[in-house]
Amino acid sequence: MSRVKPLSGFPEWSPAERVVESSIIATLREVFALHGFAEIETRAVEPVARLAGDSEASKEIYALSRLKAEDKPDAALGLHFDLTVPFARYVEEFAPVLAFPFRRYQVQKVWRGERPQEGRYREFYQADIDIVGRDVLPAHLEAEVAIVMARALAALPIPRATMHINNRRLVEGFYRSVGIEDVPGALRSVDKLDKIGSDGVRAELTAKGVSDTATAGVLELAKIHARDASFVNAIEDLWETTFTTGDAEAEKLFADGIAELAALVNAVNAAVPGTAVADLRIARGLDYYTGAVYETVLEGHEDLGSICSGGRYDSLVAGGGFPGVGMSIGVSRLVSRVLSANLASATRAVPSAVLVAVTDEDSRAASDRIADSLRGRGIPAEVAPSAAKFGKQIQHAERRGIPFVWFPDSGEVKDIRSGTQVPADAGTWEPPAGDRWPRTVGASQRG
Amino acid sequence: MSRVKPLSGFPEWSPAERVVESSIIATLREVFALHGFAEIETRAVEPVARLAGDSEASKEIYALSRLKAEDKPDAALGLHFDLTVPFARYVEEFAPVLAFPFRRYQVQKVWRGERPQEGRYREFYQADIDIVGRDVLPAHLEAEVAIVMARALAALPIPRATMHINNRRLVEGFYRSVGIEDVPGALRSVDKLDKIGSDGVRAELTAKGVSDTATAGVLELAKIHARDASFVNAIEDLWETTFTTGDAEAEKLFADGIAELAALVNAVNAAVPGTAVADLRIARGLDYYTGAVYETVLEGHEDLGSICSGGRYDSLVAGGGFPGVGMSIGVSRLVSRVLSANLASATRAVPSAVLVAVTDEDSRAASDRIADSLRGRGIPAEVAPSAAKFGKQIQHAERRGIPFVWFPDSGEVKDIRSGTQVPADAGTWEPPAGDRWPRTVGASQRG
Repeated sequence: MSRVKPLSGFPEWSPAERVVESSIIATLREVFALHGFAEIETRAVEPVARLAGDSEASKEIYALSRLKAEDKPDAALGLHFDLTVPFARYVEEFAPVLAFPFRRYQVQKVWRGERPQEGRYREFYQADIDIVGRDVLPAHLEAEVAIVMARALAALPIPRATMHINNRRLVEGFYRSVGIEDVPGALRSVDKLDKIGSDGVRAELTAKGVSDTATAGVLELAKIHARDASFVNAIEDLWETTFTTGDAEAEKLFADGIAELAALVNAVNAAVPGTAVADLRIARGLDYYTGAVYETVLEGHEDLGSICSGGRYDSLVAGGGFPGVGMSIGVSRLVSRVLSANLASATRAVPSAVLVAVTDEDSRAASDRIADSLRGRGIPAEVAPSAAKFGKQIQHAERRGIPFVWFPDSGEVKDIRSGTQVPADAGTWEPPAGDRWPRTVGASQRG
Repeated sequence: MSRVKPLSGFPEWSPAERVVESSIIATLREVFALHGFAEIETRAVEPVARLAGDSEASKEIYALSRLKAEDKPDAALGLHFDLTVPFARYVEEFAPVLAFPFRRYQVQKVWRGERPQEGRYREFYQADIDIVGRDVLPAHLEAEVAIVMARALAALPIPRATMHINNRRLVEGFYRSVGIEDVPGALRSVDKLDKIGSDGVRAELTAKGVSDTATAGVLELAKIHARDASFVNAIEDLWETTFTTGDAEAEKLFADGIAELAALVNAVNAAVPGTAVADLRIARGLDYYTGAVYETVLEGHEDLGSICSGGRYDSLVAGGGFPGVGMSIGVSRLVSRVLSANLASATRAVPSAVLVAVTDEDSRAASDRIADSLRGRGIPAEVAPSAAKFGKQIQHAERRGIPFVWFPDSGEVKDIRSGTQVPADAGTWEPPAGDRWPRTVGASQRG
């Protein structure tokens, strides 16, 4: 047999690992659906012209070509690298049949032609929720999206997630008030705080012509964070000691942003206590976002970076008119960590709760009938592949991780973990609830 | 707003249509899992060298390239065009952690760079089941796979499916007995019966040097079909009137094939009455298959061709040692027909069973609490996006297809279809079971 090696950047799971991934996705779906988000799926490809709009991401696009195209080539198509670009196109295309505000969730794979490296995938699952309005979108939906995501994360077998929230209006208002003209440029520098430190950011800002007092103000602002509205006091203290230009429009933006951020952090923490932090350092794609911006960090797994990010935007589509707010979970990276850090595992790799033994090939039909009786009541079952000695059949169940073996002749079922064997009727017997289907069990539940 | 047009060959569904697709896939998953099939997912890409082995399919491979690769190109990768090639590679790669016979199901999209045409997709869902042994695979699993697929199809909102079954050994034994040397070549001609008729097939076989008597026998054999083992008599009658070479090995193959096919058709019909037909015309990829071969036709939708096909093979992997049997459903083609022929539709497009009205923005938190109380008991709910007049909020529910509107002040819930409004407690109220989640309802159930 030829050795087959995995492809770097394209994760795949064993059947037991897939149980974990599958249950994580099912949990996300359920939380999203309970909150009224409808599921959509989009095709895997978009015209490259549509994908390539974002210059940063375009380097990573996988373009398609037909291997042996004899006729004219396809319109240039590429694989989507996120779920936002296809969602925007979907909303335009399906707008006539959608009721706005449209609440959608989407769990699909995306592809990025990155250099493979630790924790960077070329194919991975994302799970997105967005609420998109027609022309208007009430601010309370910025809280709702964060709350739904916080609840979804809380339902997973992972440590506590903290959502770091900032507000684009607050930041832009402050930056403009201290005299910064190229706000996006300054933000791109501040976004590197983790990488290059405050000295590095200071040097960059100075090189971009930002004054020393403005730079000092910007760096102080980025230090402010709090689990409640108390960040407002810190901002006010900073404001009093900072030189400002007196730009009234910028100051209004700043004040509105503060009020929005305070209300948002309070609303999220009221619904899911201890989740939200106002963090004035979050700069995430503020070019695109126009209100709240979110990043989410997993306690003890900060090296993963943000596991769930997003924000509020003025319009999903280029022509305007579809304001929205959305967040996206990097599911595969999360699943990979759950598995590698042993945060959770599957109770078994196969669906079957019961292996029905076969006494001899002539009576296989009797074993089939028992299995069908169990299946008819929603108990997954399989019949032994061969009428080997019972010891061998029990071994087969053990190898596959099946907890119960049914003996048709004696009409008994054996829990092969404890060895307990009891008489049973295939028309009424029930496995313990926890044994019916494979489950994903968190490390804490395993004791 | 720019007009966005669908991409030919890449189907997408509205949220209501996605409910139908999603429920069809969920039904398949459940039937497969109840029969002990474990789910796996494979990456979307394989090395082109692995994909291109099948010369017929290689024309349709979508190859990937990084749009702006500045460094060396990726190893030549292509999108998988079926789920068999990646499954074979997966079994090789994961063999050490799999327990054989390994029963797996897989529901994923596949891509084929075909010319777009009616009913041909370039991206579509397939749902596959296979049972793969290590070195050995008992014959009764050929019946099991067919039975599981027949049950899965019977659980869908589609007309009756008939499974046409043939046996490779029977056909090869007969062809060799009548003196045909190039059996695969003859089969390729017989496979065109529908397209070119018996005169066309006769001409092709003659051109390939097959004798007139052998050709006549082959064409007669292809006419034989029966819903039970009575096909055996027809074959015996044919045998008696056909000149044979007396090749003992071929005759044993022939006799074994007849016995296997008779047992298989009987077993499938015993489990799912009226499903199986022995049909000696089925030629489907007999190069690859070595035992049973299956095709499935939907009553009244014969133009779809085979909706579920497969067979028994000697080894999944090139090196040998992994005999198996599998079948594959073309899910997207089926879903497309279900939708276009209005065989089934969704009861609503959004998950929410309840829209909680908002009296005024100051009391939004009270509406949120009611929604949370419902969600906590598994009832999907959403809160009205704005505190408009109740009439407008009811209109919003109507547009979204939400059956119930909850009024927090009066503590009443209204079924907006009937207009019935009753007092209710969010901690105990239950919607009718059929209203809790969106459901897919067959045409017959809609009355």
